[in-house]
Amino acid sequence: MKQKIASRAAQIETVIKQFLPKEEGYEKVIYEAMNYTMLAGGKRIRPMLMEETYRLFGGQAKVIEPFMAAIEMIHTYSLIHDDLPALDNDDYRRGRKTAHIVFGEDMAILAGDALLNYAFEVASRTLIEYPDVPGLGRAIYILARKPGVSGMIGGQVVDVKLTGKPVKEDELLYIYRCKTGALIEAAMMIGALLAGASEEQVELMEQVARDVGLAFQIQDDVLDITSDSVTLGKPVGSDEKNQKYTYATIHGVEAARKEVSRLTQEAVDLLGKLPCENPFLRELLIYMINRES
Amino acid sequence: MKQKIASRAAQIETVIKQFLPKEEGYEKVIYEAMNYTMLAGGKRIRPMLMEETYRLFGGQAKVIEPFMAAIEMIHTYSLIHDDLPALDNDDYRRGRKTAHIVFGEDMAILAGDALLNYAFEVASRTLIEYPDVPGLGRAIYILARKPGVSGMIGGQVVDVKLTGKPVKEDELLYIYRCKTGALIEAAMMIGALLAGASEEQVELMEQVARDVGLAFQIQDDVLDITSDSVTLGKPVGSDEKNQKYTYATIHGVEAARKEVSRLTQEAVDLLGKLPCENPFLRELLIYMINRES
Repeated sequence: MKQKIASRAAQIETVIKQFLPKEEGYEKVIYEAMNYTMLAGGKRIRPMLMEETYRLFGGQAKVIEPFMAAIEMIHTYSLIHDDLPALDNDDYRRGRKTAHIVFGEDMAILAGDALLNYAFEVASRTLIEYPDVPGLGRAIYILARKPGVSGMIGGQVVDVKLTGKPVKEDELLYIYRCKTGALIEAAMMIGALLAGASEEQVELMEQVARDVGLAFQIQDDVLDITSDSVTLGKPVGSDEKNQKYTYATIHGVEAARKEVSRLTQEAVDLLGKLPCENPFLRELLIYMINRES
Repeated sequence: MKQKIASRAAQIETVIKQFLPKEEGYEKVIYEAMNYTMLAGGKRIRPMLMEETYRLFGGQAKVIEPFMAAIEMIHTYSLIHDDLPALDNDDYRRGRKTAHIVFGEDMAILAGDALLNYAFEVASRTLIEYPDVPGLGRAIYILARKPGVSGMIGGQVVDVKLTGKPVKEDELLYIYRCKTGALIEAAMMIGALLAGASEEQVELMEQVARDVGLAFQIQDDVLDITSDSVTLGKPVGSDEKNQKYTYATIHGVEAARKEVSRLTQEAVDLLGKLPCENPFLRELLIYMINRES
């Protein structure tokens, strides 16, 4: 499965590259900063879930590709801004220097803005190029709504505001659902919409994505306690050290593991209700959630 | 004319307020930061130009309103991010404390992101609410393209990179066209598109907007030399003091004034080629450009 995912990620890399800006013109440096972070070796989970959901509902056209690139641009802009000194102040990500270290804080702010904006430029060009795809308008609306204040940014705001403070369970679930979940919801809903899924099916995929996003995040908490830094590829025990409230520190590892299982089962059961199937998508979801690193 | 513009701006204020987020929920603080800057008393020039262009081509529907709010959100996000310590480092704007002073740098970065994103959320909702408006897809594409790397952000990047360095005329015009001009172009093109103007008419309005944006910026340079701080409501002579290269410092005040006149005349002549007219729009353009403050 690991190899299958890696080969799929490599294909997605090729798709994304087609939509990256050329590094030329007076404003060349901003394209360099955008592409530097876009090509910093992400797992491409969001475009992968989008494409596989598109295939699940029978989608076969090129219209999905700009949306795959767009959702990865939105994810990447959020990393650039999260890493800034005024937020997480991280100098490294995946062993590479972060954008503000390489290009300066001013260019990192602008490169984040540029990627968020470019995501909509790339996605909305489909309104001209593919005017007859049903669901296109809704897909663009979802692409705008889920990463915003009622989704990803909202989660980030609450996370920043509550750092170092005791967090209640409802707040924690809000952060998880928004910060991690919203883009996964967007990915799967857009895949369904562009393939012509019904309104009920799009809602079902939203629920699947919600379970998956939450399970993914709780598994992250569990691994921070149970894994070692070699397997995980990053320091462990940091949540406890930073007195960070997570699902696993609040409820304990056992209860957290149970919740991951429950959510995974719910997602798989929901998928089973559909009249269509994509075995790779089901395997991918289970693999993502139950990963050991 | 001044009064006419003020009363129109007050109407636009009401329109914009309808699209601002409610200040509630776990993430309330981000809405406060967004609204704080949105309601900091801008001149609402961009939504005004958009609405008047829409009327010029006979537009009468509500579909223009979310776009008026969206373009002002994009303008406002750019101010929030420009004012950040890593960029212009301004503590005040129009006599009010800037967002990062009031809400902290972290929330100011997120509020800028949130407004840019929210602009697309508000605008793309029209794809669901007004699916049959011709030109809607192109309007959303223009809303995404002009503020981005090939427009406003591109101009900002070059401006930042060249600060304190000698600037060639082609670079200066690039900065003016992008940083100031791109949103004015977007405003007038979107107004035309949503009213059902032809492709040639939309291009003509792009050219009008380009002239207006450039003339507006050159007039800004002239006033920095010729006006006094009481009339202008901000310090004068700052370009010379900061050794900032502007059209007026490079070519002198007289040549700059001539260029403003030439551009204004060109814009008015272009408008005269259309089979429709909006006297208020023509007056507004002339007033904007030839202002003394």
